[in-house]
Amino acid sequence: MSRIVIALGGNALGSDASEQREKIREACPSLVGLIAQGHEIIISHGNGPQVGMIHTAFDTASRQSEKVPRMDLMECTAMSQGYIGYHLQQGIGRELRIRKMPWHVATVVTQTLVDAEDEAFSHPEKPIGAFYTKEEAEELKKRYPHFVFREDSGRGYRRMVPSPKPVDIVEKASILNLLDNEYIVIACGGGGIPVVRDQEGNLNGVPAVVDKDYASAKLAEAVGAEYLFILTAVDRVCLDFGLPTERGISEMTADEAEKWCREGQFAPGSMLPKVEAAITFARAKAGNRAVIASLKEAPLAMRGESGTVICGSSD
Amino acid sequence: MSRIVIALGGNALGSDASEQREKIREACPSLVGLIAQGHEIIISHGNGPQVGMIHTAFDTASRQSEKVPRMDLMECTAMSQGYIGYHLQQGIGRELRIRKMPWHVATVVTQTLVDAEDEAFSHPEKPIGAFYTKEEAEELKKRYPHFVFREDSGRGYRRMVPSPKPVDIVEKASILNLLDNEYIVIACGGGGIPVVRDQEGNLNGVPAVVDKDYASAKLAEAVGAEYLFILTAVDRVCLDFGLPTERGISEMTADEAEKWCREGQFAPGSMLPKVEAAITFARAKAGNRAVIASLKEAPLAMRGESGTVICGSSD
Repeated sequence: MSRIVIALGGNALGSDASEQREKIREACPSLVGLIAQGHEIIISHGNGPQVGMIHTAFDTASRQSEKVPRMDLMECTAMSQGYIGYHLQQGIGRELRIRKMPWHVATVVTQTLVDAEDEAFSHPEKPIGAFYTKEEAEELKKRYPHFVFREDSGRGYRRMVPSPKPVDIVEKASILNLLDNEYIVIACGGGGIPVVRDQEGNLNGVPAVVDKDYASAKLAEAVGAEYLFILTAVDRVCLDFGLPTERGISEMTADEAEKWCREGQFAPGSMLPKVEAAITFARAKAGNRAVIASLKEAPLAMRGESGTVICGSSD
Repeated sequence: MSRIVIALGGNALGSDASEQREKIREACPSLVGLIAQGHEIIISHGNGPQVGMIHTAFDTASRQSEKVPRMDLMECTAMSQGYIGYHLQQGIGRELRIRKMPWHVATVVTQTLVDAEDEAFSHPEKPIGAFYTKEEAEELKKRYPHFVFREDSGRGYRRMVPSPKPVDIVEKASILNLLDNEYIVIACGGGGIPVVRDQEGNLNGVPAVVDKDYASAKLAEAVGAEYLFILTAVDRVCLDFGLPTERGISEMTADEAEKWCREGQFAPGSMLPKVEAAITFARAKAGNRAVIASLKEAPLAMRGESGTVICGSSD
């Protein structure tokens, strides 16, 4: 039996509540399939489209109505964890009942510790929320001097936030506790709510976004998982993606993967962070395996029949 | 050592994120004070203003922008659990660090099972979200024929939803598991996300609101708590409230409380549901004690120096 952290992409979860319920229902046979194979699973998930939607809803409504306050990114991420966790609980619960499996499911609201000195804080590069006109952006900048705006893809101005690296998972003890008692745990949604520790040792939220693949790799380390599954839309990692020489990779060492990262084989913001997170996890402990595979073929990937396995170079 | 479920009012949590953080920070010494007295605590909370704000944000924004979908009540409640749970985790964590107490805090996204045959479903009486003009309400009614609208306090039309009674707490096993391992658990926010069980045994969300005091009483039963603390703005339950003969009650039996409920001593939608929830819990098991007290005086109330204790009639 292995302990597996499964990272689901936020893009795979649809753009409204009924789509999300449907897509989760389609994904659950694969997820519960891994448990049926005898493994323990922890599910983390992205929240890009969902936190964007929540942030935009508050942004738009607060400009229309005094009854709606502005809502900063930490709180929007916390909301997205409840929103997505609730649907995952129902979807997994349904699949467990169909298979007559006596497991429980729980969502733990999760904070991710980041370093206040992380260089990402001086280079906010992750666009978030609605598009503004130049005038609106300047107006907001007056009210919130720490906001950074940048012209984005010719469609207007967007707020840019930092994407610091995860240092620790604050709720790891709670997650471990549930895992040790045969729970399926949903945690670290959207990469977790980013917090920094102040001089007194207290945690404070910061308006930032932790990449969900990096956060999942950190979570997998924290709970002593043997496997990190990064589930996406493609069946495996490819070299020469989109070229006539394109070829899928079924297994690579962390060193090989790193070389290919340097050579620009993987698209930034897409396959690159997944491969980098996989490398980090594969190197963290001897025997660790990261798997990048498609959501539908996760149980096949567990048997080595699909996906790309990344293992530590000395294994 | 006793196990205590503490129900916090949503109205005590402020109307935006910074107010909420501040009010929670003020409340935490009281909450952690109960742990310092040697007790285990589970915190549940209301979400009236918060879920209203989230619902209104999506309502308003979805009428302005195609990028924001409408969001139904179940999902808004799930979001409010993440939003409030996150701040409670930080506030309690801060207080624990100040007192050098080694406890952990976890928020569990909670569903509350209700009965699809509950008569509340034929009498939706709980107003929720934004005010509409008559025309807007009629337009929405065309798109969502199951919506019920009613004129509310002369300020426009509002959607009315049912408030069914809680039957069970779906995540009680997860909550118990964390409790048994010395966690402070935050659960059942906003009364929990109401779900009904279909013929196949699957859970489905319903657009309804479970009263947080009833849900907290059910939660207290489910986790075998000895105490249910319903914390509010007043120091204790009063008879003849607002009259010259007004007097506070320090202790009453469930039978006495029930008689006073029948006599109309307690305001519906305010003190009445608190007293009713207290009666239910006090009668559920010999030795159970419900306490209605002010947030600030919770530790005093635990020593019988403030608040109103409701005990089972046969105790």
